[in-house]
Amino acid sequence: MYTLVLLRHGQSTWNLENRFTGWTDVDLTPQGAQEAEEGAKLLRDGGYDFDICYTSVLKRAVRTLDIALDVMDRMWLPVVKHWRLNERHYGALQGLNKSEMREKYGEEQVFAWRRSYDTPPPALEPDDERYPGHDRRYADLTDEELPRCESLKNTVARAVPYWEKVISPVVQSGQRVLISAHGNSLRALVKYLDKMGDDEISQLNIPTGVPLIYELDADLKPKKSFYLGDPDEIAARAKAVANQAKQ
Amino acid sequence: MYTLVLLRHGQSTWNLENRFTGWTDVDLTPQGAQEAEEGAKLLRDGGYDFDICYTSVLKRAVRTLDIALDVMDRMWLPVVKHWRLNERHYGALQGLNKSEMREKYGEEQVFAWRRSYDTPPPALEPDDERYPGHDRRYADLTDEELPRCESLKNTVARAVPYWEKVISPVVQSGQRVLISAHGNSLRALVKYLDKMGDDEISQLNIPTGVPLIYELDADLKPKKSFYLGDPDEIAARAKAVANQAKQ
Repeated sequence: MYTLVLLRHGQSTWNLENRFTGWTDVDLTPQGAQEAEEGAKLLRDGGYDFDICYTSVLKRAVRTLDIALDVMDRMWLPVVKHWRLNERHYGALQGLNKSEMREKYGEEQVFAWRRSYDTPPPALEPDDERYPGHDRRYADLTDEELPRCESLKNTVARAVPYWEKVISPVVQSGQRVLISAHGNSLRALVKYLDKMGDDEISQLNIPTGVPLIYELDADLKPKKSFYLGDPDEIAARAKAVANQAKQ
Repeated sequence: MYTLVLLRHGQSTWNLENRFTGWTDVDLTPQGAQEAEEGAKLLRDGGYDFDICYTSVLKRAVRTLDIALDVMDRMWLPVVKHWRLNERHYGALQGLNKSEMREKYGEEQVFAWRRSYDTPPPALEPDDERYPGHDRRYADLTDEELPRCESLKNTVARAVPYWEKVISPVVQSGQRVLISAHGNSLRALVKYLDKMGDDEISQLNIPTGVPLIYELDADLKPKKSFYLGDPDEIAARAKAVANQAKQ
């Protein structure tokens, strides 16, 4: 049996400012850093340990992992950073205020952008400074790989191959894997592992800073999955995430 | 022409306590963290940028690199951690107070352990809890690779192959490399690059937190090397390191 742990980063500066973030590389707030620390303490005190870690190329996930490795006294562990674990790309909405967008486009349209499985937000033009083709960290991506916007379906389509080709063989080799990532890239993995339907995954809120533990059989089928920590605290975090989606 | 940057971590808790450190995984002090930050600002403000970073599996070097990547807004860069970049292993002296050792063994003996090229300190017994064979991070090392103590010569012998086999091909592929490491593992690289004699390298004091820039030709021969920053500050740091060796 294999154990896999998923950790969603906590509050970022743009969460706090109620702006669409996506691939914008904003940092954690002090509260977000504290969430990472608390999640790591749960792992440490629960006796969880790791051999290798994966994260995105966005600093809010990298910092969450750095904090976790520090708390667990595992700063020496190998860390692999990859864009396929990035948050969903929010296209032309990135940087815009969620409330203002609702006033402009209406509740229903914004809800569809945020919560439907396959409705992408408006696309960026390649000459937009927010287009990831202008960012050196994405220089190795093909034109097809560079997103101009993503639905959750698009995020699943680029995150799951990374799980299949890179991470899952490592898990099956017996290495204990920790993944520090984002609400939607983690949803992509959960959808794949739990064979969830499109509607079901759209409704799922993964709480921030709470380790999600998967116990997998030899074929990487989940035998069990659960959040680590105090159930009331976890419920409160999940509710906060759900409420945030309504802001 | 290629550019390579070496960065020595700053003050650790055991520097402050005047204890032999070696492979003991002690953290930076607040002053050590500040040294890392200042070194990184020099790199950032000097227009230096990187494609990949290497460090040891000791947290004082990893944290120095983490701080540097944060200051330079490059937390997304790939980082490779390897034991061959670790500090010299100080054998049975690890954890002991330097002044006390001088009282016990005499000035001359301690000086030889600290500053001669090929005198190793007393070796650890394999049942000593400080023996790295008991530490999971070194589980992949062979018995021959696991040090019980090291002279600077021994450190050169295990660090230089990592440069030759792993890092130098990456430099020659055109990637800009930053190495965050330790006084003696960096000395090993400097000795190799500059073809220094055994006596000369034993006398060299690399200041902490000051980026050491190498400009290398196509065959990785140094055309030029220099410390980045204010010459008076660099001289003061080098003197502090030299004085520390006398404590």
